[in-house]
Parts: sequence; structure tokens; C-alpha cells
Amino acid sequence: MSKTIDVTELILRDAHQSLMATRMALEDMVPACEDIDNAGYWSVECWGGATYDACIRFLNEDPWERLRTFRKLLPNSRLQMLLRGQNLLGYRHYQDEVVDRFVEKSAENGMDVFRVFDALNDIRNVRQSIKAVKKAGKHAQGTICYTVSPLHTVTGFVEMAEQLLDLGCDSICIKDMAALLKPQPAYDIVKGIKQACGQDVRVHVHVHATTGVTMVSLMKAIEAGADCVDTAISSLSLGPGHNPTESFVEMLEGTPYKAELDKSRLLKIKDHFATIRPRYQEFLSNITGVETEIFDSQIPGGMISNMESQLKQQGAGDKVREVLAEVPNVRKDAGYAPLVTPSSQIVGTQAVFNVMMGKYKVLTGEFADLMLGYYGATIGERNPEVIALANKHAKKDPIRCRPADLLKPEWEELRASTLALKGCDGSDEDVLTYAMFPQVAPKFFSTRAEGPKNLGKDPDAKPAADGAPAGKGPVSTTVTYDVKLNGKTTKVTVAPA
Amino acid sequence: MSKTIDVTELILRDAHQSLMATRMALEDMVPACEDIDNAGYWSVECWGGATYDACIRFLNEDPWERLRTFRKLLPNSRLQMLLRGQNLLGYRHYQDEVVDRFVEKSAENGMDVFRVFDALNDIRNVRQSIKAVKKAGKHAQGTICYTVSPLHTVTGFVEMAEQLLDLGCDSICIKDMAALLKPQPAYDIVKGIKQACGQDVRVHVHVHATTGVTMVSLMKAIEAGADCVDTAISSLSLGPGHNPTESFVEMLEGTPYKAELDKSRLLKIKDHFATIRPRYQEFLSNITGVETEIFDSQIPGGMISNMESQLKQQGAGDKVREVLAEVPNVRKDAGYAPLVTPSSQIVGTQAVFNVMMGKYKVLTGEFADLMLGYYGATIGERNPEVIALANKHAKKDPIRCRPADLLKPEWEELRASTLALKGCDGSDEDVLTYAMFPQVAPKFFSTRAEGPKNLGKDPDAKPAADGAPAGKGPVSTTVTYDVKLNGKTTKVTVAPA
Repeated sequence: MSKTIDVTELILRDAHQSLMATRMALEDMVPACEDIDNAGYWSVECWGGATYDACIRFLNEDPWERLRTFRKLLPNSRLQMLLRGQNLLGYRHYQDEVVDRFVEKSAENGMDVFRVFDALNDIRNVRQSIKAVKKAGKHAQGTICYTVSPLHTVTGFVEMAEQLLDLGCDSICIKDMAALLKPQPAYDIVKGIKQACGQDVRVHVHVHATTGVTMVSLMKAIEAGADCVDTAISSLSLGPGHNPTESFVEMLEGTPYKAELDKSRLLKIKDHFATIRPRYQEFLSNITGVETEIFDSQIPGGMISNMESQLKQQGAGDKVREVLAEVPNVRKDAGYAPLVTPSSQIVGTQAVFNVMMGKYKVLTGEFADLMLGYYGATIGERNPEVIALANKHAKKDPIRCRPADLLKPEWEELRASTLALKGCDGSDEDVLTYAMFPQVAPKFFSTRAEGPKNLGKDPDAKPAADGAPAGKGPVSTTVTYDVKLNGKTTKVTVAPA
Repeated sequence: MSKTIDVTELILRDAHQSLMATRMALEDMVPACEDIDNAGYWSVECWGGATYDACIRFLNEDPWERLRTFRKLLPNSRLQMLLRGQNLLGYRHYQDEVVDRFVEKSAENGMDVFRVFDALNDIRNVRQSIKAVKKAGKHAQGTICYTVSPLHTVTGFVEMAEQLLDLGCDSICIKDMAALLKPQPAYDIVKGIKQACGQDVRVHVHVHATTGVTMVSLMKAIEAGADCVDTAISSLSLGPGHNPTESFVEMLEGTPYKAELDKSRLLKIKDHFATIRPRYQEFLSNITGVETEIFDSQIPGGMISNMESQLKQQGAGDKVREVLAEVPNVRKDAGYAPLVTPSSQIVGTQAVFNVMMGKYKVLTGEFADLMLGYYGATIGERNPEVIALANKHAKKDPIRCRPADLLKPEWEELRASTLALKGCDGSDEDVLTYAMFPQVAPKFFSTRAEGPKNLGKDPDAKPAADGAPAGKGPVSTTVTYDVKLNGKTTKVTVAPA
């Protein structure tokens, strides 16, 4: 008897977020939905902060409408989302009522499984959303952000799993957003959770592929008892993305484990996204191989390329390795926060500032907040000198309480502001969109009626930017033409000025 | 106490063979040699049939000079080559004296480790070369070509290992040229060999990365007792190539195994080949992700793209999947031969013929020979009807003996023919070059004095093939120029005819 290992398919959320800057339009996903729905996945991840953001910022798509479409087209599937605890899908803490309403509306629109995490692994920041998920009768998955530091231990991660289960979570996810989870710790943590919390506790493992070791980590996690793993269909896998679903299925053959997925459906899904992928060429990550330097910098793969292009824009492309070396220092000062949205951006940007302008000469507001406790507690003590600088810079005192405890009720005010916006449809969903992205929502509401914008392009229609256009503009070498002028053919040589 | 796992670095042979059509020039390898030599590898694979072929066919490089250069630049390293048993580096069987002389000369020029295989796993075809390697006092590695069929079993592979050791081999290699080796059989075969032949027998594992499962297979092979694995530095890894060296090192951290490689040297090697890679853009494999359909067709990754381009040239690009489906049928008729050079080409080409012209309407000479036993014995019975066709087509009788037993002494004749060639330097090495590649050697000898040709190109100098060249050749749109003609500037409009 072999144990069936469940699979969560990432193609509709994290795969295109990691590989093509979250730009995939809903209409490019729709044709694959029937095969996805019937391939035998345990769940289909399809919603999260970046997809929500990209919908309203770039695609003129209502993210709630996208969710409802998935619900219709994937009737047999558990729909899964990634929720940033008290941050929901935004970049600040929300007052508990907003959390409750967001979860309630997501459930109402079709969400089944809520993977809830906090960037700092501060359990207080996921409490309210887990409570809300349970209240809605949905699956609450408590999430441990995996990271490596002198303070992070297997025991610590196991204790966090126990705390998450105490909050009522239906399952535990080990979330390795930067492909740092090596085979042995993968084995040890899963084993530890199963031993401490019981063999029946479902353990899901989410890994990226960037460092080239995590397929092995999945195998070892399974040998330790993991129940479900996350993969992405091969045509949108690897690099800063994930391990390929089809390879995962094949890998288990002959072992005491099996994945019960329909291979012919997988092939169809693969073929579909293989045709879609080149349409988004301009957004594709330029990391295609592996990057093991991440084990030192810990920066998620997707972020390195962001950082590189930021630095290049500032004419400091040569500083990339210096910045990567500074990241671990900043992280240490910040109490060894895991690096995941938003802490990865906060720490990464501060590292850039430190390299460009001198160590802590300039502090970003977000980094000051992180140092002062406004994102929550960190596992390690934060550097008191930097806290003092942050205090001075932000003119705020350090806090120790749950950050959301400082917030006043805000729903009614958010609602009033939203209703005043042109194009707002008066729904709570619109209020939530405004609450998440107050800078972007007003424009989105005003253009929503124009309908979705697909940023994909026919790859055969060569973009003008790709080399000099043929026969246009100034010549770049000496060319001789036969030119008819007033009925007479003359040899004309044209040379660059 | 953790066990040290040895590593063979493939960058100088199989990595660029698999990823850039074996085109890398020696001068692009030289700057990395010091780091390679001191990184701590067990051996450095650097020579084989395709590199030898590419040297004389494309690079105007003497392969023996390349070997001597490696010997000089890698004084601390075991140099390793891949040898096709009685085929040496060519595509036919050679008489034993040629085998002896080839091995002797290779050893004399600096080769240390000879990985000897036969495409059909016919032990009689590796006997002479293994004997010659032992006589030269070098390391003879007996090789099992891994493949999957109803007749191939763990027991069968273990028995082959025993036979190879009986021939005097110093180690055993499990060679998985098509990335078919899944974790469980990897474990079972290594375990089986260790149990049957003794724990002290060195087992090396060579896998490609194409299917995305073989990093896990390496882990399981190690858990079963494997001593050495083959990897390639990350900047020339994955796709139809191999698992990345740096990832392999990281993967073992915390396990009862370790790889003692110098990570800072690895980073330098990586950086070097990362700058070299784009110079060979036009030769780069277009497979970058994983291909799990190989588990059905069994065709090595590199060959699929070859086959695709062959079919496209014949205007039959739409027949690829049909051909891939025909390969297993042809292979069954041929007694379940493993698919590796040259059997992969022979079976693949026959599958193309079957699809294009009707089942066995046309037989290639090589396929007829394969069916008639002229390449050796296969594990399964060959289809008698196809043997009859081959018999009729080739006008030769089937044989059961070792193919080389039918050959008459040929060295003196080869030597005489070689000495008659313009540019031949009279050395035995030249005779061997002519013996291996009689079609190519004469031209190579005649141009050798011109020195090596580097096919790499500055990636920033946009190749002319990439879209129409700017300002060169016929215009493709209407363009208006200011042209000075006899001192007078005139507006001239040039339009495509």
C-alpha cells in the first residue's frame, strides 16, 4: 500500500507571479481550467496579494470577478489563496473588522483554503484571520515562513506549528519562499511536527526551485510524513518558480508514495501554458538556471532581479553583490526577520540605501517601523542603536503589543471613502479593494467598465525594441543601393554621418 | 562522521556537449582550469566522442593537443574520458589492435580515468578496451547504460556490474544519459551492486537533468551507498544537461554526507562560464525546462531537438509527436536496446523513416546492422520479421559472435592511408584521428596549421540572423534618405521591389 501525496497546483497564482511578474490575464488561464479541475489536485492556488494588485494595477481586471470565474470553472476543486495575516493582501496592518470582512467576502465568493502567514512569524498577526476563516467554515492553513538564522531551530518551527494548531488551524504549511529549505531540515521539521502534534496533522510543503535543491527537500519531507506539496506545471516552472508537477509525479514511481494525478490532463495543461508563456516574454524572469548564492543573501529569487533593475536605474548595476552582502547585516539588525513580502522588500531596500548612501544614513519609513515593532515581534533582539535611529527618524516610540491593537475601527471610514469614488459599485468587495490599494483603486474603478486588458503579445510580431528595425531610421553601415531617379538607375552609396 | 561524496565535474565535456552542441573552444575553458583543478573534484571529465569530433569538424583544434593542454593546466586532477568500448570514439567497431593503441595513446597523453560503455550493454564490446586501460595502469570504469524496458531489471543491472568487475574494472558507473533514472531504481541498483559486489566497490552515478527528477535520484543513490556523482557547474547546467554542482553541494548539508568542494572556487567557475555561455547563443539547446515525456519515448533530451530540426527541414515539423511515439516500437523490434550513441541515432532515424515513408519501407544501413547483430547482442529477442527485412536489404547474414571478431587487422592499412594525407604529422595520434573520422580527418589535417577557430560570438554584436540586418541588404519597408549625389542633396525614397 502506497501513501497518496496530495498536490497543490500553483500555475494560477505563484507560478506566474514568480516567473512573469504576475501579469497573466484571466483569459489566458480559462482554457486550461477544465483540465486543471479534473487532474486530481488537492487544491488550486489562484489568488493572493500580487495577483490582486496586478489585476487592478495592470490588467484592469476585477480580482473578485476573477475569483468568481475560477469558482465557476473549477467546480470540483478546492480554491486556495495566500493571505498575509493582519496585512491581508495589502502592505499595512488592518483593524480586525476589516480582516473579518475580507475573509468573509473571500469565502462568499468561492475561496476554500486560506493559507495564512505573517512575514515575521508573529503568531499574533495571524490570529484574527484564522479565527475569521474558521468562522466562515473554511480551511485555515497556518503557515510557518521558513528561514535560516542562528536563532531559527527545528524546535522553534515545531513550537510554532503547535501554536498555529492551538489557534484552530486545519493544517500546517511550511512555506519556503526563497528555496532555502534543504533536504535534511525539511525532513527534520516535518518529522518534528508529526511527532509533536500527531501523525494526523496535515503538513503541506511549499518550496521554490531557485537553488536547485528543493525537489530533494520535497522527497525528504514526504519520507518524514508530509501530506501535500506545491508544484507548478512544467511549462511555467523552475528558475525563481517551483518544481514541475509532472516531474514530481514521476519521481514518486516505485517509492512507497504516489501522486494520483491524471498525466494526460497534465500534458494538456503543460501544452496550454507553453503556448501562453512566450506571449509574456517581456515580463519573464531572466533567472532560468539555479542561484545558490541565495543561501547567503536569503533574498527570494524574484527579488534579486527587481533589485538589479533598481540598482541599474540608479546607475549602480555594479553594486549588486555589495547589496546582496549587506542584506544579511540588515536582517541581523532587524532581529533575523524571515525575508518574505513585505519584510524582504523592507530589508532589501534598506540594504540598497546602506550601500548607496552609507550605513543607516537614510532610513525608509517602513524599515523604521520594522525596527520599532510596528510589523510585530521578531525572533531575535533588534539592534538597539538602529532602534534609536529609527525612533529619532520616525518620531514614534517602539511598541511591544500586537500592532493591530493600536488601530481604531476603520471600516465605516473606508466604506465612505470608497463610495465617494467614481465607478465604485457600492459593494463591500470594492471597499476591500480600496482598503488594500488606496493609491490604485480609484483609477481602477474609473476604468473598470472598459474591461480587462491582456498584456500578452504575439511572440512572432517582433517588438521594435529588439535590435534596430530593418530598413528604418539612420543607416548604421555603408550600403549601396540601385536607385531609380527620374527614370535613370544610379548606384547610390549611403554611409552613416 | 559524515561520508564524503566525490564529484566528477562535467563542464569540459558533457555539459557543453548537451547544452551547446559541443562547440566550446579550448580557449574558453582555459581561464577556468586553475579553479577547476583546485576545487576538489574527484575527476574532471574533459574528452569523449563528440568533443573529439567537434574539435576536428568545427573548431580546427587537434583533440590530442586539447588533451595535452588539460594535462598541463589540471596537474592535480584526474582527467576522465568517455569511451564507447569497441567503437572507441567513432561509429563502427574497430579491430582490437586499434583499441589497444587508442587507449595507450590516450593514457600517454594524460588520460587517467576511462569510463567505458557499450550502447547495447554487450559486455563483449567493452572487454578489449578495459583490458587495454588496465595494461596502461589507468582507472577502468565499467559502465552500465541505464534504460527502462520490460526486460531490464535491477537484478540484470547488478549482474552486469559483477561481469564488469570480473573484467578488472576499478569502479562501476551507472550511466543515465536520458534522465530516466528515478529515485527508487537509483536506490535499488546501487544497493544491489553494493550488496552483491561488496561495499568497497566504487559506484559512480551519471545522470542528466532533463526530466527534473534526477537530483532526487542522486540523493537516493547516495543513501544506498554511491561514492561519486557527476554534476556540472550551474551556469552550464539543467535542461538536457546535468544537475548543478553548487546545488549538489548545498543539498548534502546537514545530511550524513558531504561534498568537499571549495565553494569560492565553484563561484568563480560559475561566473566564468556564465560569461562564456551567451557567446554560443546560436548553439544553445532550446530545451530549458523539463521534459517528462521522455519517460515514454526514452530519447535523450539533446536528440529530441535534433530530430525536431531534421523533421522541420523535411517540412514535417508536425510529425514530432508521431515520431516520438514510434521510437518505443522500433526499440522493441530492436530487442530493447538502450538509447545512447549510436543506438539512439539509429533507432531515432529509423523511427523518422517509418513515420515518413511507411513502417520499415526503407531501412537505414545502420538499422539493418543493428537488427543483424553487427553492433552486438541485445537484451531482448529482435523481431524476426524485421531481421528478415534487414537480411534482404543489407545482403548480410545475422551474426551472434562479438562483432569485432570478424574484423581483420587494420592498423597498418589505417597508418598507410593516414601518412598519405596532406598535413598529417606522422604520429599515431593522427592515425587514430583518421581511424575515428575518416571523412573529416583529411580536411582537418590540411587546415590544422591555421590554428583553432572559436565559434563563440560577442553576444552584444547582434547576429544578422536575428531579424533583418539593420541597414544592410534589401530594404523591407519604404525608407526615405537624404542622399548627396554629385554635390546635390536629394530626397530619395527606396521601396521594396
